[in-house]
Parts: sequence; structure tokens; C-alpha cells
Amino acid sequence: MKKVGILGATGYAGQQLLWLLRNHPKVEIEFAASYSYGGQDFSKIYGNYFGEFNKVCISNTEVEERLDDIDLIFIALPHGKAFEIAQKALDKGVRVIDLGADFRLDDPERYEEWYGQSHGGKEILSEAVYGLTELNRDKIRDSRLVANPGCYPTASLLALMPLLKEGLIHTSSIIIDAKSGVSGAGRGAATQTLMCECSETIKAYAVATHRHTPEIEQEASKAANEEIKLTFTPHLVPMNRGILSVIYGVLTTETDEDTLKKLYEKEYGGEKFIRVKEDLPETRWVKGSNYCDISVKVDKRTGRVIVISAIDNLMKGAAGQAVQNMNVMFGFEEATAIDFISIFP
Amino acid sequence: MKKVGILGATGYAGQQLLWLLRNHPKVEIEFAASYSYGGQDFSKIYGNYFGEFNKVCISNTEVEERLDDIDLIFIALPHGKAFEIAQKALDKGVRVIDLGADFRLDDPERYEEWYGQSHGGKEILSEAVYGLTELNRDKIRDSRLVANPGCYPTASLLALMPLLKEGLIHTSSIIIDAKSGVSGAGRGAATQTLMCECSETIKAYAVATHRHTPEIEQEASKAANEEIKLTFTPHLVPMNRGILSVIYGVLTTETDEDTLKKLYEKEYGGEKFIRVKEDLPETRWVKGSNYCDISVKVDKRTGRVIVISAIDNLMKGAAGQAVQNMNVMFGFEEATAIDFISIFP
Amino acid sequence: MKKVGILGATGYAGQQLLWLLRNHPKVEIEFAASYSYGGQDFSKIYGNYFGEFNKVCISNTEVEERLDDIDLIFIALPHGKAFEIAQKALDKGVRVIDLGADFRLDDPERYEEWYGQSHGGKEILSEAVYGLTELNRDKIRDSRLVANPGCYPTASLLALMPLLKEGLIHTSSIIIDAKSGVSGAGRGAATQTLMCECSETIKAYAVATHRHTPEIEQEASKAANEEIKLTFTPHLVPMNRGILSVIYGVLTTETDEDTLKKLYEKEYGGEKFIRVKEDLPETRWVKGSNYCDISVKVDKRTGRVIVISAIDNLMKGAAGQAVQNMNVMFGFEEATAIDFISIFP
Amino acid sequence: MKKVGILGATGYAGQQLLWLLRNHPKVEIEFAASYSYGGQDFSKIYGNYFGEFNKVCISNTEVEERLDDIDLIFIALPHGKAFEIAQKALDKGVRVIDLGADFRLDDPERYEEWYGQSHGGKEILSEAVYGLTELNRDKIRDSRLVANPGCYPTASLLALMPLLKEGLIHTSSIIIDAKSGVSGAGRGAATQTLMCECSETIKAYAVATHRHTPEIEQEASKAANEEIKLTFTPHLVPMNRGILSVIYGVLTTETDEDTLKKLYEKEYGGEKFIRVKEDLPETRWVKGSNYCDISVKVDKRTGRVIVISAIDNLMKGAAGQAVQNMNVMFGFEEATAIDFISIFP
Repeated sequence: MKKVGILGATGYAGQQLLWLLRNHPKVEIEFAASYSYGGQDFSKIYGNYFGEFNKVCISNTEVEERLDDIDLIFIALPHGKAFEIAQKALDKGVRVIDLGADFRLDDPERYEEWYGQSHGGKEILSEAVYGLTELNRDKIRDSRLVANPGCYPTASLLALMPLLKEGLIHTSSIIIDAKSGVSGAGRGAATQTLMCECSETIKAYAVATHRHTPEIEQEASKAANEEIKLTFTPHLVPMNRGILSVIYGVLTTETDEDTLKKLYEKEYGGEKFIRVKEDLPETRWVKGSNYCDISVKVDKRTGRVIVISAIDNLMKGAAGQAVQNMNVMFGFEEATAIDFISIFP
Repeated sequence: MKKVGILGATGYAGQQLLWLLRNHPKVEIEFAASYSYGGQDFSKIYGNYFGEFNKVCISNTEVEERLDDIDLIFIALPHGKAFEIAQKALDKGVRVIDLGADFRLDDPERYEEWYGQSHGGKEILSEAVYGLTELNRDKIRDSRLVANPGCYPTASLLALMPLLKEGLIHTSSIIIDAKSGVSGAGRGAATQTLMCECSETIKAYAVATHRHTPEIEQEASKAANEEIKLTFTPHLVPMNRGILSVIYGVLTTETDEDTLKKLYEKEYGGEKFIRVKEDLPETRWVKGSNYCDISVKVDKRTGRVIVISAIDNLMKGAAGQAVQNMNVMFGFEEATAIDFISIFP
Repeated sequence: MKKVGILGATGYAGQQLLWLLRNHPKVEIEFAASYSYGGQDFSKIYGNYFGEFNKVCISNTEVEERLDDIDLIFIALPHGKAFEIAQKALDKGVRVIDLGADFRLDDPERYEEWYGQSHGGKEILSEAVYGLTELNRDKIRDSRLVANPGCYPTASLLALMPLLKEGLIHTSSIIIDAKSGVSGAGRGAATQTLMCECSETIKAYAVATHRHTPEIEQEASKAANEEIKLTFTPHLVPMNRGILSVIYGVLTTETDEDTLKKLYEKEYGGEKFIRVKEDLPETRWVKGSNYCDISVKVDKRTGRVIVISAIDNLMKGAAGQAVQNMNVMFGFEEATAIDFISIFP
Repeated sequence: MKKVGILGATGYAGQQLLWLLRNHPKVEIEFAASYSYGGQDFSKIYGNYFGEFNKVCISNTEVEERLDDIDLIFIALPHGKAFEIAQKALDKGVRVIDLGADFRLDDPERYEEWYGQSHGGKEILSEAVYGLTELNRDKIRDSRLVANPGCYPTASLLALMPLLKEGLIHTSSIIIDAKSGVSGAGRGAATQTLMCECSETIKAYAVATHRHTPEIEQEASKAANEEIKLTFTPHLVPMNRGILSVIYGVLTTETDEDTLKKLYEKEYGGEKFIRVKEDLPETRWVKGSNYCDISVKVDKRTGRVIVISAIDNLMKGAAGQAVQNMNVMFGFEEATAIDFISIFP
């Protein structure tokens, strides 16, 4: 039985993590820490847990002294907040999975450029492994510090990888038009995510400036073995969960959908959570699950390939993948506690 | 390992049932039958099953010849459609759980009055057990034919029962104002349940004429040991799942919320799926789960009691309770395969 | 041309008011004041006004000095905030329409009991007219201070009035089960009205304690000429706009729907904005308009009458009725600037 | 006073048209024809019209004999259904605005290729004017037959035009990623547009095959004076109304956002319904109005321009633009009856 703690347990990703870990047969939740709700009964904040998980949240400041009790800590905090506690955890031999952005970019200068603040964890950054499980499974297994990918990068990179590896897409032609549900904006009180403000509208945001851009570029560049710059446009969609990532690129060679589908099926053949489909992905079919559905289409008239992927931003895009990574790190069966499909409708 | 079949597997309740049964460790789904989609791959209709459940639906007409293969059949068809197949199943020693209305009313004349058609199963009606698990657990265990309750009656009766049994409510004063999500209207193509027609509106419907009225009255009368007539008003709410039932009645004696809460806690103390709360129930906290949350309030100024209950109409209000009943019938642990809380948001 | 000011112009009711007044042919908006957005361009807050209304909001504190410029002030502030400015406006001969609760209850002690604070406007309270236009049109015409009704009371009282006046309903039997869209909760940043928290759920709130209760009782009592206490239960529904009020009561005499419908049609025959319907009201048919749709049903089995009314909480329930009252006060045609039906879907 | 008829008046676009025309001071609705609801009271189908527009729908087959009564007919029917009645109307001297696709493509072979059926109106096709008002105002004025543009083409072309005219975008690099609300799918009963099927999901559809592609290419090619092929991807978004069109292209020259914004402001300076914004467009700000909001962004890192436009698909994307065109054709002030901004929320 492994013991874990969750930091940021009352945010949307944190509570999803807690939901999953409660059902994990080989893991025990030692504590759930919350910045906003320290000292409060978790089931008063999330009424679905009433009678089933009545633990009291500890405050974030109590976490340090509890590190001795655990084998691994999940950090689900805003960027910039993970540096210190991650260092302390590692010092005590506690493994770390950070669901935030602090250890995703290899180059601290790039972090500082896009996040507008200095990188407070340079000493441990080099040992951080980018936790896209399907890509880095072996490194994750032995890592002490896993940087769980962002939601948009997860959806986008899984869709892009086979084309990049095979050199089938002009690397300067890549455009990612991605759409996210509102839970991606978090649970903090804010006028802009009120029901009335976002239930009957769609908008693009952070055009050409979103912080997930360098993260996608970094991993795409590694796969293609050349430096890639791409255009990334996120959107806010009036639904609670889900990301749809639509990727455009110019093909380097004439090919057809069948051939590309087979390439994807081969690439992801052994992967439990990647489903290559002929039908176009829809977020409802992955909602609440750890799956990533992918479909490849060719626009023959223009010579472009269009890859579409769908994930649940709180699952494969956050907590689900974090558990998947933990399973890898602890040598558990990889799908433990995340082995279920979407409940619909 | 018990073998079961599902009739009406591509409706919302039917597919929820299939979802649950797939994860049941002691049950095997022998067939999924569909009126509309016979011969089609189930995972083409519900894309969340892609790669995980690729069985082809059989057509409803093929069910009869498959009865020999199963121990129990779930019937999730519109009312009037269960009579014949239920009879045939019983004849072959196959137990039946009907999620429709055909065996819920003890009196076939009442059925004919409210459903506007003759009752085609009078010979077996007398052995039907009303499948509100918490109420009739013992009878369900030995029954061959279980009439799974309607969604509104489940929410309403669980909320009403303690008051009725204790004689705390004037039986002529009961008003049930209930609100349901749109999945209750089913998956059939219809203009009135299009997104555009119901996403930004609320309405009452079937005022003073809804068919769940006699079902609630029948069971409430039994509990109170006198004939009860009550007012029942259902509403359509712009959400996918959930029922909130708000029940008003005049107290027969002066009492307070604390006393009533204790009464409810005592009544439902051993029940896994009934949660007596101080906080007011919200459907989000039970969505996708088999729980029924209940809260009792007193309006001292008017001498009324207000009981509020929340369920998921497709779970405790249909498929979840059907599995619960099956577990009882087969002697399994009652919460098997339905032992999880709501995923939020 | 009359000149008006709006206090609280950036809240949902305030901006709806501004929307309506912009189109009013006989009124000029002299200023729009905002507590949160003073000094900001109104069209940066509400992007629909871009290019069409680029005025800068003044801050609430600047309002006093601008009173000389206007004939009437609309106050759309939280309760407790209208006392002082209303007094000052009246002192300067400026007429007042308060959309908040400060002048709705005749008895200041009742205000203090339900609102938990002392009444700061006792000197002018006695001249306040309750602004349910259809009820008090003549008094409103000559009033200097109109207390615009709450959204729930508007829907509920219009539905109840004919029964009360005719003595057709047992006054001790009244239960109001009302449902509101989320805009009723205002535009302030709050976790509980985030899209993710309320888009797929329904809940009752403030059971037996909501502040609109005494307001409804006060006006109902006047109409019935006896003191009425009733049960009022509000609900939050996952839609942006709309209130559905469902009212239950025991009939004092045997009657039928036809007779009652005719009574309502007679009562409201000359009223532009009251539509007595046979079809059950749905909030979508009044959304964005000043109409109140009403339907009367009889539950013969139980001797109850069920009256259902639908309004738009920001229109007939707030800004629309405020303009209607202003039109009456200024002797304009009553439907000016609010004479349009709902845009659907 | 001009007299008009509406064919297809009970579809979403048709009823929006009727809504607008009812308020038009210089137009009288002579008849509203419906395929599905002939003989029924319009206000029974759309309850918002109760008491305000109680005309009975005529059936589509009665339209021909009513042509003598009108000056202009609006045709809001599925493609392929406008040929015959348009011909008959023109024969009788009745002007035609077709909201469908039958007269949008100049080349009947292209129509046959994309719509999979023969073109039944070749004799009158040559005189059809593509009714993008801002582009073809002069031709529309004198036309007998106006092909009202599709919703996606309206949003996309208005966003693209200035770049194309100025040669600022590589014509082979254009990608349009567009998102539509559900009303675009029409009011016909269909499982796929049920609330439960589309309220919590997003999907792309008709990838590389959507019929609006040749329409966009045709008009874009004219503007650029060279043949353009582009990639167009539509999406279904869980909201009722609105289209957001996001257009990507490679700049032919280095430039910045300021310069481009000024270009757009110059191009659209005199246009009432085009609003060039610095803030990113959101569909909520144009919902229910005839405006098209546009914003131009530059992704300096990749040399791309990103143009984003928002319209209401039923207004500027259908009925609103149809009224705008009618106003032009009749010499009325162009904004008559469509001169209002979005009601929010």
C-alpha cells in the first residue's frame, strides 16, 4: 500500500484526483490539502462525497510536516507555487507529480519568458520528466519528479506525434485550433466564468500568446528532431469538461486517410487509452474517462492533413494522466483506477 | 457467473444499465437488444464504448429465442411493450426486471385508466414486486418479476416514507413538485427535446395528469395504511440528468427539523444509498450515482414540512436501482457495480 | 424629453434597464453609475454595446452631484443601499424607482426582521408605492417613490391575484414553488454561480426563509383582505433568465378550468403584458420580454387549483417593469420601449 | 407599404424573419407558409407570439396562388426546394430572397458536384446576386433574385475580404475553423440535436466536405482575383445561436496588428453592422443582433494572421441579412427593423 498526499485538493483537478485515488486498491490518501478550505470537511465543499469521504482538509502550510508520512505527493497548484514544496518533497525522498506548469519546460529561460516570473526550481528541473505517459513511459518509471502535461498539450501532442515522427507534415505549417470546457478555468470566483457569462457563447482567448504554446513546441520539436514553431489558438466552449484539438498541417507527401489511419493504429496499437477512430471524435465520448480519441482526415483539395483529438481536460488532461503516471512509477498495472469509460449522457 | 440480457439497450436507461453491468464482476451480458438499432455495432451508437464493447445489438424480435441462454432479463421498453416478453421469460424460468410501467400498479384497472390501454399481463401481475429496494428488499429477493419503480416515484417515495409511517403528515395535504432533466424524455427524435427547444427554459407538464401519480399514491397509501390522493407536478429542467423532488405537507404535530432529521437518519441508517443531509440536496451531488440525498425542513410559520430529495433519474431512478434489485435477487452484495459517487463537475 | 440616471448600471438588471432606455424615444440617459466599474467605458464591460453606447460609467459617489440634471433615478443596488440616495433624490425633486427591496415592505419592522438590518428610510417609506403596475397603476402615476417589485413576487402575485380577490382559494393553503434562472443571483464573482457549479444541477435554496416571502404575503394579504401566511420555495435552475412560479392552493368551491380561465381573462383583459393561456407557460416564450404568461389548472382529484406563471426575471421581474412604471409616471404610452416579444431560440 | 410572404416560416430562420418583419414599419406580412404546420396557428408553434401574431400558417402548396398579393417572397427552405417557386415568383414580377443554397453558386456544375443533385433553376441563376450586403449592395438594389449567403460564409467572408483585396494573405494558406450553435442544424426532429446528445460536447463535422466550402471559395476568389482553394472545418458547439469563425493565413508581408486594424476600420468604416474590435469577438455580444464583430491578430512568431469574426447565425447569418437585403432592394433605410444590439445575458 502506497501513501500519497494531494496539494490543491479542492480545485477541479485536485478533487478529480482524489475521486480516482479513493478507488485505487493500492493507494491510500494520507491527506488532502487546500489553500482556501483548510480545516473544512471535504464533503461540505463537494457534496457528492457526503458520507463517503468525510476527511477534513489540511491547509497548504501543514503539508511540509506531513511529508514523512507519504511516498508521493501530487501538486495541483497554480504555476509558480510548486517549486518550494517539490524541492522539499524530493529532499525527503518523496516522489512528486506536479500537475502544474513549473517543471514542464526544459529551459528555465523559456519558462521565465512565457510565465513572466523567475524559475524557482532550477536545481531539480533537469531531472523532471515530461509526463505524457505514452511517450515517456520508461523515463517516468524511474523518475522522482514528473511534470504532468497541460491539457491542451496532451490532446495536441498525442494527435501530432505519429505525423512528426514519420516526417509526414511540413513542420512550419502546423496550426492547432483547440476548444476547452469551462472547468479548465478553475474553481476560483470570477465574473468571466459565471454561468451567465459563458453558457451561451464561444470565444477564442490568448490568441498567439497562450502558455501551452512553448510546451507543445518543445515536445513536438523533439519528436521531429528540428525546432518547430506553430500557431496555437485556445477557445472557451460552453460545456463543463472536454478538449477538442483540431490540428492542421500540409502533408509532405501524397497519401490518403486509410494509410494514415493505419499509421496511427500501429503507433498506438498497444495503448489502452488511445483510440484511433474513423468517426470524428466528440468530447462526450471521452468525458469523465482517461481516453484520448483520435481521427485523421485528409483534405485532398488542399493537400492538408487534419487530425482531431478529444480528451477530458480533468482526466487525461490532468488527474487521470497523473494517476496513470503514478501507476507507472509504482509498477502498478497502468490502468488501475482509471479503467472505465465515459458515463453518458 | 449469472447471464443476463437487456431489452431496449440503446435507450438512455438501457445503455446506462449496460454500462453498469459491464463492470459487474458476477454478471455477463449475454445480449443487448434494440428495436431501432438491431444489427448495428453498439459502439457506433454510443461512441464511448468504442474498443471496449463492440458487440452487435440483436433486434428485439430475436430476444425470445435467446431466453434459454440467460438467468434474468432487463426490459427497458415503453409501457405496454413488456407484457408478452415478460410472460415468455417467466415461462422459461428467466427472472424479469421491468424498468417500464407495466407491472407497477397492482390494479390492472388503474393501469388501464391512466395508461389508456388494456393490461396485457394480468396473469403474472399478482406476483410482481414493486422494486423500491429499500422498501421491499425481502420480497424482491425471492421474486421472479420485479417492477422497477419510476424515476419520480423513487425520489418522492423515499422522501415521503418516514413521515407516512410515523403519521406525521396530514395525508390529504401532500403536494409533490418535481423537476427532471431531459434524459427522462428518452432518446427518440422529437422536436420538443431538441437542444434549442429546451436548453434555456423550464416548464411544468402533465399537470394533474402524469402517470406516475397513481404509482406514488399506491405505495404511499400502503405505507400510511389509508388511501392517499395527492397532487403531483413534474417539470422539465434544462439539464441532462437528475430529479429533484420537493414535497409539501402539513404536519400533524408540532416538531422541529432536528427531530425529523433524526427520524430520517434512523429510518435510513443502514441504507448505503440514502443520505440524510442537513444541506439541501442538489442533483449534481448524485448525478451518475445510485444515491438518493434527502433533507427535511420545517416551515414553522405555516406548520408545513418540506422534504427534498435528489436522485439521478437514470441511476437510482432506473438502471442503478435495477442493478441494485438484481444484486438482491441473486444474493450478491447489494452495492456491487453501483458503489461509486458522482463525478463532478 | 425626460432625463434619467441609472445607479447600479453594470449589474444584470441595471444593464437591462440601460438597454431598454437607450431605445426609449422620450427618455435620455444622463448617466450610468457603477460601484465596480466607475471610470470605465460601458462597452468594455458589455461588449454588445460596442460602437453603440460608449459612455463612461460614473462612480456611485458622483451620483449625488448629478441629481440636478435628471427627472428620475433608477436605483439597482443591493438592499440597504438605496435609503440615502433615494432621500437625496426626493429632496431635489427627482422621482425614484428603486429596483431593490428597501421600500417594498410597508412595515419597517418587518424589513428589519427579514433583512437583518435597520431600515434607513423610514421618513419616506410611507409614500412608497409598490410598483406592480397592473395592480397599482393609479398610485404609481402620481408617486415620487416607486418600489419596483421583486422578481418572484411579480410572477407569484400576478398569478394569485384573481383567486384572492374572488375568494376562490383557501388562504391558509397557499404554496409557491418557484424556479429562477441564474441571472437572478447577480453578476458578482462567486464560486456558486460559476458555470461548472450550476450548469447541470437544480437545487432549492432559502427554504422557508427567503426574503421575498413577506413581500408576497403583504400584497396577497391586501388583496384577500386578511392576513396570509404562505410557504415559498425558490429554486436555482440551469438557465440564464426566467422565472416559473407554480402556485398550489385548495379551492373554496368546486369549479373548473374553463371558468377560472375566463375569470383570469376578465381580470387581465385589458392588460398588454399579461397573457392568459391554455397551454402551460414556459419561460422561453417570455424570455427577453415584459410579458407574464399565466395558466390555471384544476386538480379535480384533490380539489386544488394550480396556477403557473412565467416571466423574465430581468424584464417584468426587474428592468422591464421599471420602465413600465416610468412610462406610467411620466404619462407615456405604457408599453413604450418594452413593446416586443421574446426572440427565440 | 410593401407586401411580403415567407416560405418556410416555421423553421428557425423563417420564424426569426417573421419576428423581424412584424416590427418593420414599411412591410406587411401577407402570409407565412409552412411545410409541417400548414393550417395551424403560428402562435401555437411558437408560444412567444401568443396574442401578438395569431395568423394561421398556410401550407407550402398554397403559396403559388398567393404570389399575386405580394411584392417579394422570402424562401427559407432546404436546398433544392427553391427552384420552382423562385421561377414562378419571378414570372409574376415578385422579387425573391432565397435564404437557402440554390442560387449561391454561379456555376451549376459546382452546385451539382457539392449538393449531389441537378440544378433546377439554370435559367434564372445568372441573374442571381450573392447577397452579402456589404459586398454587393449596388447589385442587390436592382436585383430580382438575391441569394442570401450561408451563415458560415457570411462570417468568414466578411473577415477575409480586406486581406484578400489588399493581397496581404497567401491565398494557398487559408484555413477556416468555424464554430456554430445548434440552431444551425434546424428544427427538425433528430436524435443528434437532442439536448442530451449535444449539450455537453463539441465536435467537428463534415471535415473537408462541407457545402459552404465552394461558396466561400467562389467569393474569396473573386475578391482576390485568382482561384482560391481553402480548408474549412465546421464545428457544433453547445449553444443555441452564434457562429465564431477563426481564419488562419500566412501574411505576404511583415505587418502588425495596428496596421491591419486600421485597414479593417477603413474598409468597414461606413458599415453599420461591421464592428472592428481590439477585444476578441465573442458570440454573446452579437447574439440576437445583425452585427458582425471582427478582430485581427498577428502571430509574429509564425508570420500568420488570425482573423476572428462573430455573428448570430440566424440574424446576420440568415434572417437579419435577408431583411437588410430587402431594405436595400426596396430603397428603405438599410438598418430598418434590424437596428438593435444583443440582449444579454
